[in-house]
Amino acid sequence: MTLKELYEKIEEYLNQTIEIKGWIRRHRKQKEFGFIDFSDGTCFKHIQIVYDKETKDFDKIDALKHGSAIRVLGTLVKSEGKGQDYEIKATEVTLEGDCSDDYPLQPKQHSREFLREIGYLRPRANLFQAVFRIRSVAAMAIHTYFQERGYVYLHAPLITASDCEGAGEMFQVTTLDLNRVASEKKVDYGKDFFGKQAALTVSGQLQGETFAMAFRNIYTFGPTFRAENSNTKTHASEFWMIEPEMAFCDLEGLMDVEEDMLKFIVRYVLEHAKDEMEFCNQFVEKGLIEKLEKLVNSHFTRITHEEVIKILKEAKVDWEFTPEYGEDIAKEHEKYITEYFHGPVFITDWPKDIKAFYMKQNPDGKTVAAVDLEVPGAGELMGGSQREEDYEKLLSRMNEMKIPVEGMEWYLNLRRFGGCVHSGFGMGFERLLIYLTGVENIRDVIPYPRTPGNCEF
Amino acid sequence: MTLKELYEKIEEYLNQTIEIKGWIRRHRKQKEFGFIDFSDGTCFKHIQIVYDKETKDFDKIDALKHGSAIRVLGTLVKSEGKGQDYEIKATEVTLEGDCSDDYPLQPKQHSREFLREIGYLRPRANLFQAVFRIRSVAAMAIHTYFQERGYVYLHAPLITASDCEGAGEMFQVTTLDLNRVASEKKVDYGKDFFGKQAALTVSGQLQGETFAMAFRNIYTFGPTFRAENSNTKTHASEFWMIEPEMAFCDLEGLMDVEEDMLKFIVRYVLEHAKDEMEFCNQFVEKGLIEKLEKLVNSHFTRITHEEVIKILKEAKVDWEFTPEYGEDIAKEHEKYITEYFHGPVFITDWPKDIKAFYMKQNPDGKTVAAVDLEVPGAGELMGGSQREEDYEKLLSRMNEMKIPVEGMEWYLNLRRFGGCVHSGFGMGFERLLIYLTGVENIRDVIPYPRTPGNCEF
Repeated sequence: MTLKELYEKIEEYLNQTIEIKGWIRRHRKQKEFGFIDFSDGTCFKHIQIVYDKETKDFDKIDALKHGSAIRVLGTLVKSEGKGQDYEIKATEVTLEGDCSDDYPLQPKQHSREFLREIGYLRPRANLFQAVFRIRSVAAMAIHTYFQERGYVYLHAPLITASDCEGAGEMFQVTTLDLNRVASEKKVDYGKDFFGKQAALTVSGQLQGETFAMAFRNIYTFGPTFRAENSNTKTHASEFWMIEPEMAFCDLEGLMDVEEDMLKFIVRYVLEHAKDEMEFCNQFVEKGLIEKLEKLVNSHFTRITHEEVIKILKEAKVDWEFTPEYGEDIAKEHEKYITEYFHGPVFITDWPKDIKAFYMKQNPDGKTVAAVDLEVPGAGELMGGSQREEDYEKLLSRMNEMKIPVEGMEWYLNLRRFGGCVHSGFGMGFERLLIYLTGVENIRDVIPYPRTPGNCEF
Repeated sequence: MTLKELYEKIEEYLNQTIEIKGWIRRHRKQKEFGFIDFSDGTCFKHIQIVYDKETKDFDKIDALKHGSAIRVLGTLVKSEGKGQDYEIKATEVTLEGDCSDDYPLQPKQHSREFLREIGYLRPRANLFQAVFRIRSVAAMAIHTYFQERGYVYLHAPLITASDCEGAGEMFQVTTLDLNRVASEKKVDYGKDFFGKQAALTVSGQLQGETFAMAFRNIYTFGPTFRAENSNTKTHASEFWMIEPEMAFCDLEGLMDVEEDMLKFIVRYVLEHAKDEMEFCNQFVEKGLIEKLEKLVNSHFTRITHEEVIKILKEAKVDWEFTPEYGEDIAKEHEKYITEYFHGPVFITDWPKDIKAFYMKQNPDGKTVAAVDLEVPGAGELMGGSQREEDYEKLLSRMNEMKIPVEGMEWYLNLRRFGGCVHSGFGMGFERLLIYLTGVENIRDVIPYPRTPGNCEF
């Protein structure tokens, strides 16, 4: 049986014989008895194993080391000690896998930096037991939300030959022998695997639009890549994105989905990762659960970029960056505006020159039907837009912004072949997790993070 | 409203006014009236729209082209015509997005080869409406199976610096400027993004084991890559894999999970993609549903590789490849053995020399605790093994097979730090889809397939 199964029906197992396998998280030894803090990873809770001189092979048990895998046979009893309601009184404890004395994960507080260095062991630490289970539960929340609503899950391609968002920040994918390239002094992409230059995708949106024109509502949930040389808390080279795309949906409809989805995910995670969230609430971000419950019950404000700039300009604040019409807003502005409205804020109708070519041009000729969702304590959590469905307008915008049309004919053609009003957004999965767990560094919400100069395990 | 919502409660909507948006799949025009075969992609079923001279703007509607996006206002009525029970009698049909005359997807049978060339439009074709919804539903089946059983979903890293399965078949990932490499006549990986050579992963198993040692039961479900220059129906360069890994689980336990999971997925897909499966049953593989229902109710045979060879040798068959003890089996053998046992067959205890270094060595010194699942009509669907948990045995096997230890210390260390009996398997998601849909070519179950020389859209 697993610890999860035991805790689910713990009253029924009282005074019953239990067999359980897992790991020693801590071992306190006395002369006549001992306590093992036991976990099997199936739930956040541990259980205490008590043994004494009457337990078979007392001396062998007493010698068991922290970190070892063990099998325990015993009786579930009410605990008389402090800190737990139940414990297992062992009749037998046997070693399943020994742990060496140089085990780096000791039962004490390690720094997150150190834990990153032992990335293959850190999922055993409490913080990462919480974070990576929340990651798993949040992923399921997303799939559940979209599948229950009939969205088709699209696996967008990872390797791509189009590079609309700028090749400078893309990883190249090749089977060319680089030593040979160097010795032959030339690059012949005709000999590369795909017969041309290829790279890792930065977004599945364009392919997502093709599926929205077939299935109406679709979502992607997969890895994307950015070869940006940024060493910040929020940048990783490999991360997971969710990119829903909806046909016959305008900007207002898009915001409805974003708000509804986010509230669903938060409720789902609070319900399905209760112990883990309580741990984060207590040890990672005080007030985390209150923050999330507030979000679920809040009204998301909808306001244009122009109105936001007006509010910022009227604010009696010494801005580091002066807010300006027609320009992007800074982190300090995002923070102010969510505090101003006491909750999440959709900022719509952004200046077209700071947004992507595919966004729907508004009649004013200056703005596009784009929307960023700003969330208290997280900043921008999602970015989306209505897409330009007019072939000519899209083409002229591509030309203005010097986006090469070659290789993008298919994307343009979507507008010629029954294209319609449609909208979509992107949400970085790790950004969501930072918000959900309170963990600040993206390196601590990704199992094996890849960042400039770092590709371990 | 969507067509899915309409069909879910169709009796309730009878004689009600309906507004619906979607696409013209076919348009039959008569002098006084017309029929539009309408679909919005939310379900496999279409609906017929009827209009006549009394409908507003008859001439405009009459001019609407196949492929266009439209909005329909009308009344749901019982159909008097053949082929459908209900239809919508339109009062208004308006154009939402026109479709050009050169639309390549005509309402007729196109070859699959041609449809691949217009990959961005093919999801609108019936076959791909079925296949890609089944893909989505099957993905949800997999997540549901594991999440309901407490498994943690692990996003294994895609970019990796270890290359245990052979660098020859991996895609290299780089930010080095290849023209510069050519002009400078040298490769300096110190200047590459990660400061060393990196590649796209071929498997998340090794990282999966690290998580199994923390959470007991985990699964991956993500893309993997193979730079193999194979142009066959079953090879793609980018595909999705499911790799569960379970601590305290031996080979028998592993087979239990494989069998239970496969039956669950099949039942889930038959239930959640009923219309799509019926289409495949009728137009792709006759007897498909019967094949799958048989699988769900079948007993999976468990037999050793040695016993299989014995059966093959005794068979009165003119083999193209002679079955031999200690060697791999061919496709013809796989087929024979599933027919011999009238169902799926687990073949266990394979000769160690044809299997991977990490598989548990059996006491006989010749075989490893590996298992392949052979399924009637699909061949090998899953491959798994108990993992070698003994540090010394694993190390010596790596040395024998010339697997470099450098960079793999962490993997070896799992055996020193509370390692225990554990097992895992891999299932190619596309191989499963080929089996579920009856579609033969892997290019037709991947939204945007990548194969040698092909990286379109």
